[in-house]
Amino acid sequence: MKSFNPPVRTLMGPGPSDVHPRILSAMARPTIGHLDPAFVMMMDETKEALKYVFKTENELTMPISAPGSAGMETCFANLVEPGDKVVVCINGVFGMRMKENITRFGGEAIVVEDDWGSAVSTDKVEQALSENADAKILAFVHAETSTGAISDAKALCKIAHDNDCITIVDAVTSLGGSELRVDEWEIDAIYSGTQKCLSAMPGISPVSFNERALSKVKNRQTPTTSWFLDLNLVMGYWGKGAKRTYHHTAPVNTLYGLHESLVMLSDEGLENSWQRHQTNHELLRDGLEAMGISFLVDKQSRLPQLNSVFIPDGADDAKVRAALLNDYNLEIGAGLGAYAGKVWRIGLMGYSSRKENITLCLAALKQTLEK
Amino acid sequence: MKSFNPPVRTLMGPGPSDVHPRILSAMARPTIGHLDPAFVMMMDETKEALKYVFKTENELTMPISAPGSAGMETCFANLVEPGDKVVVCINGVFGMRMKENITRFGGEAIVVEDDWGSAVSTDKVEQALSENADAKILAFVHAETSTGAISDAKALCKIAHDNDCITIVDAVTSLGGSELRVDEWEIDAIYSGTQKCLSAMPGISPVSFNERALSKVKNRQTPTTSWFLDLNLVMGYWGKGAKRTYHHTAPVNTLYGLHESLVMLSDEGLENSWQRHQTNHELLRDGLEAMGISFLVDKQSRLPQLNSVFIPDGADDAKVRAALLNDYNLEIGAGLGAYAGKVWRIGLMGYSSRKENITLCLAALKQTLEK
Repeated sequence: MKSFNPPVRTLMGPGPSDVHPRILSAMARPTIGHLDPAFVMMMDETKEALKYVFKTENELTMPISAPGSAGMETCFANLVEPGDKVVVCINGVFGMRMKENITRFGGEAIVVEDDWGSAVSTDKVEQALSENADAKILAFVHAETSTGAISDAKALCKIAHDNDCITIVDAVTSLGGSELRVDEWEIDAIYSGTQKCLSAMPGISPVSFNERALSKVKNRQTPTTSWFLDLNLVMGYWGKGAKRTYHHTAPVNTLYGLHESLVMLSDEGLENSWQRHQTNHELLRDGLEAMGISFLVDKQSRLPQLNSVFIPDGADDAKVRAALLNDYNLEIGAGLGAYAGKVWRIGLMGYSSRKENITLCLAALKQTLEK
Repeated sequence: MKSFNPPVRTLMGPGPSDVHPRILSAMARPTIGHLDPAFVMMMDETKEALKYVFKTENELTMPISAPGSAGMETCFANLVEPGDKVVVCINGVFGMRMKENITRFGGEAIVVEDDWGSAVSTDKVEQALSENADAKILAFVHAETSTGAISDAKALCKIAHDNDCITIVDAVTSLGGSELRVDEWEIDAIYSGTQKCLSAMPGISPVSFNERALSKVKNRQTPTTSWFLDLNLVMGYWGKGAKRTYHHTAPVNTLYGLHESLVMLSDEGLENSWQRHQTNHELLRDGLEAMGISFLVDKQSRLPQLNSVFIPDGADDAKVRAALLNDYNLEIGAGLGAYAGKVWRIGLMGYSSRKENITLCLAALKQTLEK
């Protein structure tokens, strides 16, 4: 067995995205104890920076020590009690996963379905909530990574609150790359990942809960089944400064990486980052359309950082992706579900959202398709 | 907000332990996709190396993408079904946490209690199992990190099997540092951490399940509440080569670190590592005893990599630990529970188990206590 030296890729799939050398370097800084005062200070800074990125003042804003799927599970494990009726919107893979979470925690899932590639229909949600006056939660995906469709989180949250529901929002792919305003839009519970538009390592998931969500967590009839994700315990660990109590061992070095990525994002400015993702999307779009390649998602629902495009007639999905990887060290993503073999997913997330990546991708794709 | 440059510490607490520069460097290698063929190859190598360290041929041997607490939860979430009677041994913090897991997943916990600092009593376990013929699982901690006591895993597993129970074993602190033979001792399900004797980063937890345990997982009446930790799904992700199906995004760079630590452990040889931990423990013990400092745990149950020692009369716990940290950049651990303020926990785990660390620790402690 020998040391593993990975190939150097350009990552333009659905995540992880390219990680900036500054963030890679941060990962290699010396490990310190997770109760060290220096570490506690770094954690406090990370929480503040996450508030900035989520645009929230929520005190309970922190990274969960596990990947985005566990961030999702944190929301459902803590907020769904057995018997709770939850309206869940499915327009791709991650809405389906939400439904799975609801039923596993004993909730009753009322499904609002939209075509893969479409945004969540606010009309359908309004109808579902009016037909289910006892529903307690509305759950939806802001940016569907499986298709590249963005939904109107602000409008959906308003409908939910008009119907006395709290909201759980998946922002794994939107955080840092698309407009997202937790406080202004009154999102109650939200989770994200670090390996998309934050360009940090996969392995941790930022979450944020407002007081309304937190009060449901604190007033549960029975504790959640997950000790590891129980916010009543996790909160004590991420509490300010000296008040911290031991819960688990935080992923110290991965948090160094997240911290550095948040420094870089603060330096760039959040709104500038949103704009960069949009501008680069347009550059890629123009290049792809010039090659006759078309998009799965309608223009008004198109997520700039995740571009699902139809595989041109006559092109072999697996062969093209393998050629891009082997000949150009370029990764793009495959389609999922009904769109497996039919679309490619080209990511422009975080540090991957750069002009040089787009130029490489367009040229490599053109050369490969012409072969 | 500025980049975070951690102080350079010597880590001699209960974990994380010092991380070798080779492993830190591995963390900074370029991130690649978690479905990249190169990554899949690295995962396969990691699984093989974990089999070597666990001394098992179990096909289901893999790292869970979250810290040791989630490794624990993986075992209980998958193996405990509502109504299952589980005999759980408590002789420290982590036995208590096991009990919490059992009751949260709907099991009935039958507690076998021993003093903190003692090994688990095989007699008491034998009695509890004979009084509870319908018990299905025996759960115990091999190496209690909260006290530094090691229990006789081989004998406990034999008693469990004589009583038709499967076993769940916590090996967070023992793996790589103390004799541990999963197949020979017939341990059915086991979990560990990476930040102790493997000297890798905190954040992932190796687990191993044999066929007996796996068959209980596959034949559950209801799925476990945790989608993220459901082995029926996770197994598909960690399956061999091309058979892998997407579940979550693996913590790519943290796995680079684990891989490198396993290369180093293979090079040293597992038995040599066990011996090194024992030899260095004796060196530390001799030095501490020469200073009049005595151990919490009896000699025959003493874990070489975690040394709980009584705080000398007149010494101020917090002040001494702060002085060691501030004046020598040396971290040692505080006592827990009833032993808070009464003992220190000095770790000699993995790369921390070195003669130079012991020399520093003894000298710094002497100077600080004499002040």
